[in-house]
Amino acid sequence: MNFIQSINKARKQNNSFLCVGLDPDTSKFPRELLSGSSPLFTFNKAIIDATADLVCCYKPQIAYYAAIGAEDQLKLTIDYIHKNYPDIPVILDAKRNDIGSTAQMYAKEAFVRYEADALTVNPFMGSDTLVPFLEYQDKGVIVLCKTSNPGSADFQNRLIDGEPLYMLIAEKAQRQWNKFENVCIVVGATYPEEMKAIRETAPSITFLVPGIGAQGGDIVSVMKNGIDGSGGGLIINSSRAIIHAVSSMDFADRARDAAIRQRDAINNAKSV
Amino acid sequence: MNFIQSINKARKQNNSFLCVGLDPDTSKFPRELLSGSSPLFTFNKAIIDATADLVCCYKPQIAYYAAIGAEDQLKLTIDYIHKNYPDIPVILDAKRNDIGSTAQMYAKEAFVRYEADALTVNPFMGSDTLVPFLEYQDKGVIVLCKTSNPGSADFQNRLIDGEPLYMLIAEKAQRQWNKFENVCIVVGATYPEEMKAIRETAPSITFLVPGIGAQGGDIVSVMKNGIDGSGGGLIINSSRAIIHAVSSMDFADRARDAAIRQRDAINNAKSV
Repeated sequence: MNFIQSINKARKQNNSFLCVGLDPDTSKFPRELLSGSSPLFTFNKAIIDATADLVCCYKPQIAYYAAIGAEDQLKLTIDYIHKNYPDIPVILDAKRNDIGSTAQMYAKEAFVRYEADALTVNPFMGSDTLVPFLEYQDKGVIVLCKTSNPGSADFQNRLIDGEPLYMLIAEKAQRQWNKFENVCIVVGATYPEEMKAIRETAPSITFLVPGIGAQGGDIVSVMKNGIDGSGGGLIINSSRAIIHAVSSMDFADRARDAAIRQRDAINNAKSV
Repeated sequence: MNFIQSINKARKQNNSFLCVGLDPDTSKFPRELLSGSSPLFTFNKAIIDATADLVCCYKPQIAYYAAIGAEDQLKLTIDYIHKNYPDIPVILDAKRNDIGSTAQMYAKEAFVRYEADALTVNPFMGSDTLVPFLEYQDKGVIVLCKTSNPGSADFQNRLIDGEPLYMLIAEKAQRQWNKFENVCIVVGATYPEEMKAIRETAPSITFLVPGIGAQGGDIVSVMKNGIDGSGGGLIINSSRAIIHAVSSMDFADRARDAAIRQRDAINNAKSV
């Protein structure tokens, strides 16, 4: 089963488009947690146990671990999900990109060392730099297309032969890179009109959608503009609004509450 | 002293534009090294001791360490250079990029955890994503502009208002991002005509130049087209051709030979 199949299975099983971003910010941890030996893993474990029946995947952002030398806790987190919730795939959000020989090392980092099911990658250096990732045919390769931040306009929106750069990427995702049906693209919830146009250009590509929750994207527009012809094709991420809903020791229960609200808001928006 | 000043000082002190890339590929190590406890650090230490008087900086590529869980050996390597050769700055090549809060974590990884003097970053997500790096005013922020690989044409060469995307990046480096005089750009040696045009647009920006050696860039063209008005402005990287010149136990001596040849070839090309 490849990544796209795993995501679709988990989405149907849990009736959820929700991806929970595991971006643990220790400054928002309850103080009691910080004295333990592996606070990030302890935190993640509680979040995962509280939400695993509500999500279609998890997405740890590697910078939150790398900044403090906690690669071991990232590995423990991914191992924990694989062992205890084997139907829930894990996206490693790392936005990697480099020339061939180095890209091979990044692919090894994500897919061999961490055993992630998918990795986010940056397409700026060109198609040849994506090949070492794409060759892992069972893994998902999630290419940045139109990101959720305001500055995404600086380059991604610039017109090339009359079309924005993000549309050129969407076209390549649909027609060139997806030979093994393992390509997804990142499309921010904060740009609903752009999402609509991208869906027309890339009808069979799954979108990883950041930007709801803390960043303010509208879920009704996402479901209207982003869903594919089969009623799927979306992985909707929420990080801070779920995992850091509160800073007290009931963070996991409150994360569950927030995840239920988010999952239901998405499902309700789908049926609008 | 900020990064640009450090680089210029080291370049003059060692009369060298050469940056040695510390991208240790264990498959090219002498077998004797692999049995030790920290083979990457042992390898790097020997390379550094053999070349420190011949370079203007070192550039470890993080993927070679991350792929095998050797972050500790990357840290040991950077610490070793700082302690033993404090005049030689270290560029961490990691090509990081993400939205603000996550970019802050990547900046912390590079500048606080590893204490790198500079970091390579990817501009695809826009100017706002570069700010958390640029705010480290004493550190160098080296933005991808025109990379050395063939696929760099896919997006970087596409015309926007009649100008290639890489030129738009060079303009922003020169006019917008360089408020703290801590910005450099990556310009591949494999594209000498593009380098010439970029130098005209970005007269006071230092270029990090990959693509000589194994990738085949021509050093005479680089020195002719890339040098700035003060006779500097270039950091010329060579990785594999120096550190993996041989796979036998005399690798450090042969790296020194290769580094001398490369440094001299650059200096000779400069005076052509």
